[in-house]
Amino acid sequence: MNPLYAAMPTTIFETMSARARASGAINLGQGFPDSGWPQDVLDAAATALLQGSNQYPPMPGTPELRRAIADHYRVHQDVDLDWQREVTVTSGATEALAAALLALITPGDEVILFQPLYDAYLPLVRRAGGVPVLVPLAPPHWQFDAAMLSAAFSPRTRVVLINNPLNPSASTFDRTALEMLAGFAERHDVVVIADEVWEHVVFDGAMHSSVLSVPALRHRSVKIGSAGKIFALTGWKVGWMCAAPELTHALARSHQFLTFTTPPNLQAGVAHGLGKDPGWFAAMRAGFQRSRDRLVDGLVGAGYAMLPSAGTWFVSVDLAGSAIPHGDIVVADRLLDAGVASIPVSAFYAEDAVTTTLRLCFAKHDATIDVAISRLAAAR
Amino acid sequence: MNPLYAAMPTTIFETMSARARASGAINLGQGFPDSGWPQDVLDAAATALLQGSNQYPPMPGTPELRRAIADHYRVHQDVDLDWQREVTVTSGATEALAAALLALITPGDEVILFQPLYDAYLPLVRRAGGVPVLVPLAPPHWQFDAAMLSAAFSPRTRVVLINNPLNPSASTFDRTALEMLAGFAERHDVVVIADEVWEHVVFDGAMHSSVLSVPALRHRSVKIGSAGKIFALTGWKVGWMCAAPELTHALARSHQFLTFTTPPNLQAGVAHGLGKDPGWFAAMRAGFQRSRDRLVDGLVGAGYAMLPSAGTWFVSVDLAGSAIPHGDIVVADRLLDAGVASIPVSAFYAEDAVTTTLRLCFAKHDATIDVAISRLAAAR
Ligand SMILES: CSCCC(=O)C(=O)O
Ligand SMILES: CSCCC(=O)C(=O)O
Repeated sequence: MNPLYAAMPTTIFETMSARARASGAINLGQGFPDSGWPQDVLDAAATALLQGSNQYPPMPGTPELRRAIADHYRVHQDVDLDWQREVTVTSGATEALAAALLALITPGDEVILFQPLYDAYLPLVRRAGGVPVLVPLAPPHWQFDAAMLSAAFSPRTRVVLINNPLNPSASTFDRTALEMLAGFAERHDVVVIADEVWEHVVFDGAMHSSVLSVPALRHRSVKIGSAGKIFALTGWKVGWMCAAPELTHALARSHQFLTFTTPPNLQAGVAHGLGKDPGWFAAMRAGFQRSRDRLVDGLVGAGYAMLPSAGTWFVSVDLAGSAIPHGDIVVADRLLDAGVASIPVSAFYAEDAVTTTLRLCFAKHDATIDVAISRLAAAR
Repeated sequence: MNPLYAAMPTTIFETMSARARASGAINLGQGFPDSGWPQDVLDAAATALLQGSNQYPPMPGTPELRRAIADHYRVHQDVDLDWQREVTVTSGATEALAAALLALITPGDEVILFQPLYDAYLPLVRRAGGVPVLVPLAPPHWQFDAAMLSAAFSPRTRVVLINNPLNPSASTFDRTALEMLAGFAERHDVVVIADEVWEHVVFDGAMHSSVLSVPALRHRSVKIGSAGKIFALTGWKVGWMCAAPELTHALARSHQFLTFTTPPNLQAGVAHGLGKDPGWFAAMRAGFQRSRDRLVDGLVGAGYAMLPSAGTWFVSVDLAGSAIPHGDIVVADRLLDAGVASIPVSAFYAEDAVTTTLRLCFAKHDATIDVAISRLAAAR
């Protein structure tokens, strides 16, 4: 057995969800919404399921969905993608991440990652033979600077993996930050894998900055997207990778041997959804922003200090600012006893963990948010 | 870029399907059926899609499907599986294979494989860091013997990967063969990964022999199954791994970082399907057997020699026996010109290829089979 997996525990997401189910707590831990998906996307998938083909679609995705992805980024990011040579559909963003890391890493390559990091990143980099180089980001702004990049890059760096917007910190990297990263990427001739699954879930009128729209990164990046996050359908597991043709060739080979292809009826639903009117995306954002504000206002009213949330379905309690001195794991346990599951952000660190923030998912009905607020207020 | 993927061409399946589409040929190449799926399985999935949850199901699969898998093997193989500790749902059998190889191989481990081999096996073993040891099987029976195993096993062997029934040769390994393999596996303390996706598609009254039903293999095997093959829904990409709890722990971790989970509505459809009456499975087998016989009888009538097909959707032309002396790749090209796409079996070899057999998929309507026969008859 490979020692990496033999000793690995269950993820924090599964663990907290299981504890929430067992205790009847409100689950603000694992990130999934309880509403917000478009009925017409479900209908399009159901129609394709009952009336379309259920046999292997082409390995890189249906032409319909690959075209829809390219068209979508033409409209939403003003980026031109060649759907036949630059777009590969995957079975969710996790598969895209696995495919990209297995395709781009040769054992011994250094891979730069930023902490806090999503739980899949480190095991995938390690299993692909990469040597992780971890750059720690700190609250409240979670940004990197030139000195941090300078310390991380080496002649052995081959890949940089970023998550933008960043889960769990709900922060974003703006165009200036990406351009700074691009300078290093060019000088060291490395590929940037950008997990941009939260691209559409950004607030306060901000625009997502994609690696695809930064000229110096356009041809040395793999952009990963996910229908699960865009359409609030986390179980669908339809994702994609956009990258220059030479990169796409290797990415597609790697994908081919991970899942080969993705259910055609779900691809049809997503293709339909990506073509929705820009107004739908704006309304979706506005809806989640209202939920964010409801939870934040309620908790601030109850005496909690909250960190900013610029995107994602998450917002974090600042334990230090709330004068709650215990580590985040202890507090998460206490809040679970009080009936609300959360995620201690230290779980997103491999070393030098920040232990003063606790992530909450606000993608829930108002009534659920309100009960959570009153339970959390009582738990202070 | 990882050199393994950078230089790798498109698969033979994609290539032949694309050429068939471009030329309007009947596609007997890539293995997919044009009928035979159960409407009630589609309906169950559509109902779950429209009325059930589309959010993350539990990482190892829905309890409903995991229970259905365990129940299914209780009925069909007389095997007792603990659904909570021995069953993991995957996004197709390819993902199961990737997860198992990444979980069980430590770089440098030797992995025994049998040729002809499915196209994903070798790249996955190599990318996982395994050192492939290839055992060549030969027509018409495609069996291994003790001398072949003896030559292949070494103190560095950690994993054996078998495919039973075997695609492309349409042969099977019976209980005696599995017991012989079990003896070696025990002596060398290795794990057997058994790709048994064709388990239900066996003909002439034969019963599939699973590694799970061989006592010496029960606790040192990973059995891989696939709804796509059982229900003729190759695009669904719902598979599973059954293995002892300690193995399952590592398999689930590996799966977690490849796709994390599988669409819940398709899991619901498959759970429904696995509980179907044993009569459905018998009728399904009988239907494909009739198609096999129709194609074989027609081609034998036209002067082709055909190899036996004990299972799968495939049967092979024996070029040598048909007095067609050219290599299989040249003949496949000629048959494509005549309007029928096939797969040269040499594509399933990494070395020492058998070049005298050509695989045809018979999972097609009678009318399609009949046109294919007449085109192939004319091409002799
Ligand atoms: C794959 S379970 C975790 C889901 C998620 O994106 C999160 O909670 O961060
Ligand atoms: C994944 S495409 C190949 C399908 C198949 O099982 C075959 O044709 O052998």
